[in-house]
Amino acid sequence: MCGEIIPYQYKVLNDEVEGIPPSHAIGNFQLAAGEEEGIYGGMLFQDSDVGKWIEAASYALDWEKNPLLEEQIDGLVCLMKKAQGEDGYLNTYYTCKKPGERFTNIAHGHELYCAGHLLEGAVAYAKVTGKEEFLHIMIKYIELLREKIGAGQGQMRIYPGHPELEMALYKLYQYTKEEKYLDFMEYFIKERGSQPSFLEKDSGFGEQFKDKWFGLTYHQAHRPVAEQREAVGHAVRAMYLYAAMADLAGEKGDEQLKQSLRALWDDVTGKKMYLTGAVGSEAHGESFGTAYDLPNDRAYAETCASIGLIFWAKRMLRLEKDSRYGDVLEQALYNGAISGISEDGKKYFYVNPLMMLPEEAEARYDLQHVSKERTSWFGCACCPPNVARLIASLKDYIYEDNEGNENLEKGLYIHLYVEGEMRFGRNGESGFAVEGDYIKNGRIRYTYKGKTAEKAIYFRIPSWCGRWEIRLNDERIMGGEADGERDEEAAKRLKKGYAAINRQWQEGDTVDVAFEIKPRLVFANPKVWADAGRCALMRGPVVYCLEEKDNGKNLNAIVVKGKEGWTLGWREEQGYLDGEAAISFPAEREDAEEWGNALYRYKKSARKEIKAVAIPYHSWGNRGCGEMAVWMRVE
Amino acid sequence: MCGEIIPYQYKVLNDEVEGIPPSHAIGNFQLAAGEEEGIYGGMLFQDSDVGKWIEAASYALDWEKNPLLEEQIDGLVCLMKKAQGEDGYLNTYYTCKKPGERFTNIAHGHELYCAGHLLEGAVAYAKVTGKEEFLHIMIKYIELLREKIGAGQGQMRIYPGHPELEMALYKLYQYTKEEKYLDFMEYFIKERGSQPSFLEKDSGFGEQFKDKWFGLTYHQAHRPVAEQREAVGHAVRAMYLYAAMADLAGEKGDEQLKQSLRALWDDVTGKKMYLTGAVGSEAHGESFGTAYDLPNDRAYAETCASIGLIFWAKRMLRLEKDSRYGDVLEQALYNGAISGISEDGKKYFYVNPLMMLPEEAEARYDLQHVSKERTSWFGCACCPPNVARLIASLKDYIYEDNEGNENLEKGLYIHLYVEGEMRFGRNGESGFAVEGDYIKNGRIRYTYKGKTAEKAIYFRIPSWCGRWEIRLNDERIMGGEADGERDEEAAKRLKKGYAAINRQWQEGDTVDVAFEIKPRLVFANPKVWADAGRCALMRGPVVYCLEEKDNGKNLNAIVVKGKEGWTLGWREEQGYLDGEAAISFPAEREDAEEWGNALYRYKKSARKEIKAVAIPYHSWGNRGCGEMAVWMRVE
Repeated sequence: MCGEIIPYQYKVLNDEVEGIPPSHAIGNFQLAAGEEEGIYGGMLFQDSDVGKWIEAASYALDWEKNPLLEEQIDGLVCLMKKAQGEDGYLNTYYTCKKPGERFTNIAHGHELYCAGHLLEGAVAYAKVTGKEEFLHIMIKYIELLREKIGAGQGQMRIYPGHPELEMALYKLYQYTKEEKYLDFMEYFIKERGSQPSFLEKDSGFGEQFKDKWFGLTYHQAHRPVAEQREAVGHAVRAMYLYAAMADLAGEKGDEQLKQSLRALWDDVTGKKMYLTGAVGSEAHGESFGTAYDLPNDRAYAETCASIGLIFWAKRMLRLEKDSRYGDVLEQALYNGAISGISEDGKKYFYVNPLMMLPEEAEARYDLQHVSKERTSWFGCACCPPNVARLIASLKDYIYEDNEGNENLEKGLYIHLYVEGEMRFGRNGESGFAVEGDYIKNGRIRYTYKGKTAEKAIYFRIPSWCGRWEIRLNDERIMGGEADGERDEEAAKRLKKGYAAINRQWQEGDTVDVAFEIKPRLVFANPKVWADAGRCALMRGPVVYCLEEKDNGKNLNAIVVKGKEGWTLGWREEQGYLDGEAAISFPAEREDAEEWGNALYRYKKSARKEIKAVAIPYHSWGNRGCGEMAVWMRVE
Repeated sequence: MCGEIIPYQYKVLNDEVEGIPPSHAIGNFQLAAGEEEGIYGGMLFQDSDVGKWIEAASYALDWEKNPLLEEQIDGLVCLMKKAQGEDGYLNTYYTCKKPGERFTNIAHGHELYCAGHLLEGAVAYAKVTGKEEFLHIMIKYIELLREKIGAGQGQMRIYPGHPELEMALYKLYQYTKEEKYLDFMEYFIKERGSQPSFLEKDSGFGEQFKDKWFGLTYHQAHRPVAEQREAVGHAVRAMYLYAAMADLAGEKGDEQLKQSLRALWDDVTGKKMYLTGAVGSEAHGESFGTAYDLPNDRAYAETCASIGLIFWAKRMLRLEKDSRYGDVLEQALYNGAISGISEDGKKYFYVNPLMMLPEEAEARYDLQHVSKERTSWFGCACCPPNVARLIASLKDYIYEDNEGNENLEKGLYIHLYVEGEMRFGRNGESGFAVEGDYIKNGRIRYTYKGKTAEKAIYFRIPSWCGRWEIRLNDERIMGGEADGERDEEAAKRLKKGYAAINRQWQEGDTVDVAFEIKPRLVFANPKVWADAGRCALMRGPVVYCLEEKDNGKNLNAIVVKGKEGWTLGWREEQGYLDGEAAISFPAEREDAEEWGNALYRYKKSARKEIKAVAIPYHSWGNRGCGEMAVWMRVE
């Protein structure tokens, strides 16, 4: 899919795709570089789209060499160099549109956020290609920021309104090993939440945003981060902040931060996360709602927030190997994150509701944030390049081999089951070939290639799976036998949800991992009022949904009955997503016709037996506009 | 209840109730009259509250003489006289705050709306007391309006942005019999919807309201009213307009208008009305949503809109005697209208949701229109005096004896079953004493008093009742025997839902009407997604609800099972509304505790058997803040 997305997005950022309003993202750099005349266009954080795109393109280069793509990046880097101020400052909005207003609106101006995304792009490009020009540009900018910002005399005591630079600085530290970048990141994290907060004095948004949704909680700045226990405010900001906190906690072994992170994790995944791994249920302020408030039609569930949850989960895994983080990583990845992109890679959802009623979405003011179909681009286009960099960097999420940090657990941990290869050792000289199709049938085979070597390999046993087995050289060595979720007995023999094989690996050794992967009904905690009396359908980590295309209008008249007679259909047969099944199942449908003109009456609806069809949630809306529902009525 | 409400509201309008921000309503008249100095306060339609209060107070005087109250009204009339311009103009907002801007913002300025409410007050006061000074003041103003507005040369071709004056003019016509007022009202109704509309050029609201919700449909001005078939836009405006259209259609026998009214009625009551008789499901624009879009938590369901529906229903009944209008009148009256007022008469709901989750209502931006508890008054206080005038004029809704208009059906029609007396004849010399308690036990007795006289009396047989009987002098003469709703066989012997007794009435004749009144479950059309898988509970015309006070938190975890074991409790036993039953019934409750920290899982919730308690919806929120739900889960 990367092969399509990245060139497409490059064209969009260059304003070369017909029918899409200009992004101005690259144009703004041309302006700042003095190569073009005109006026700044787009959001004040338009620079970040270029940073994210370069990051995504860099990861793509790691999959496959591509001289054209490299040339395009180099062209952008050349622009950046010209756009950069002599002092190192690099932000086209403040350079072209608001000269003299640098660092005056840290709360909402996204200046440090843009720096973060450009820096992530620079580190990624350097890492993949070894070319460091962009990195040096960014280091020059970071040095300017380090000079201006901090607790010292004459410095601005600030931190990013929208966290992002923190994660980027940690990457810079990892790449350069220079402690000062870690210190700078730590300063940002520890400073956040100190009172009184500079954020309240910032110029901020317009008057219409002067309400409680845009206060300190919006920025997770209501108290020091190490004291935070509940996820509040802007969901993407929260996810990026928590991810950076986990970076820092892992690096430093900071127990206070870890405690805060565990509580925040429990709060998010135990009370505020949609089944799809989406977070942020409140459109106003793009923010977390109260516990268990997860309405399906009004969900904000921003694509970027699911991606942020994936970033955070990955870093929690680095912090402590517990499969619950991997489970959520997988859940967000296969559902709420990739639902943000169409099958052809060229259309995007910003908001990912779990129920779509097109007429209501069109007519209701409180649903105006919801889009009935994916669109080609957005004025605020944070999501598309974010999906691109997530997908392009997928291999960073699959497995992890921690070395060299005493605060981290040792061993090779497999978090996701994806075909390809898995390398380890000093120069990646050993490894496994990975074959199979986990999403399709739950089976995947690891074949060892390399010199005989001792290594502990840990396989995540997903909590959605009760019946599974691991075979070493065709001999069963472990397994679970539960009919439902996690086999609690088998779980006792796992290490926090991971099955360990520690041995001398020899060329040709095979490990077969097999998970029973069958459609199952999932229920929500009764406190989730929006899902009361309803169930969802999952298969493996994939959440399903009903679409009007397969089931006709009025999906809320369909009632799931029992679990017999379920059948799978595949893409080649029915036109669904590659390798994933559509699921047909017997259900009942209330008959609205039989009601005539009645709106209310004593008699329950008559019902008809029907065959309902569910498809993976992430692929909804690829066949035109219509109703969609994840949560179905059940009795 | 009137005895409490009217003096309380007088104090509020005089800014004499501690703890309530000043209304300024009477103060503005003092200002315009030159009796006080200061600045105009409150909404631009603050005058209307005084008009409505005088109207309510006048009806109260009709129940019972009250010299103090009459003095208070006379005092206000005296103020009005002084506040009136020499040319007759009377509006304190434009006089005190926007001199020179008369008639520049008809779309949203509420100038004609205020004229309408003052006129309704003036007519009511004249009718009840015979004192016409206020009426003459208002006639002078109306004459000014008649001079300025119309289709003639040099006149403004406008009509009220918010309908109201139309109904008032019809009342003026009925009182004075002067055709010119009927003509003026007809002009307004026929002119509405002509294109291009002056409304689009009006100054209107601020920028934030320049969206599709505030266009021509908001004012029901998108096409001529006789061509309208679907209810759209601001719900109160729509109700007041349709009511006036029915006045006109009844007066003129206008078949085109009648056709439009029947279609609009079907659209509202068949697709857009809450079970409580509330209308207008969309907060933005206080407007109708699309068909079947009736969310319970986000309902706007303005008290005034239910009252407007009652106005309309009453006028439809005048137009054609069909019990479906009476049924809705009763449904709105006993539920969505009086839910707007607390049991002590001093607190009010503007918005009447059918589900309340206090934490969400507090936290969610899209629920900010919803109030968790009734409040003492509002900045925009249209509802409280509207409830007051509705309750004070209740006897106008109980029965109707049409005489003297050839377009109306003859006979005495009983629409509501309420104790008291019912008079007819030229000077009201004949009549019935009415005793019983319809809401409590469905029984009511009519005893004839007066000279022997022939008269056709029609009794509405409510569609909610399948088993009923009418006994004349203790002998059963009619009845229904259905177990559920309307007995269709018996209905054939009715005249559009009314049971007729046409005879020579003699002193002491009795008619006993008895309706089987038992708790029953009600279901919504499957197209109403918000009520899918749910049922409501009614008893007679009264809609019930669950409250946290009786059932604990998380009402959505309660599931109604079957219809056995239902018991009634009365106010004296359990502290509920006078004469109305609380209903206890066996149900099941999902056990959230048993879930631990899980948000989603495979296993359905375990359930406990519980005794649930429902109380009348209109009396919810009288015992503190908590959850409330009308629609309950059912299997």
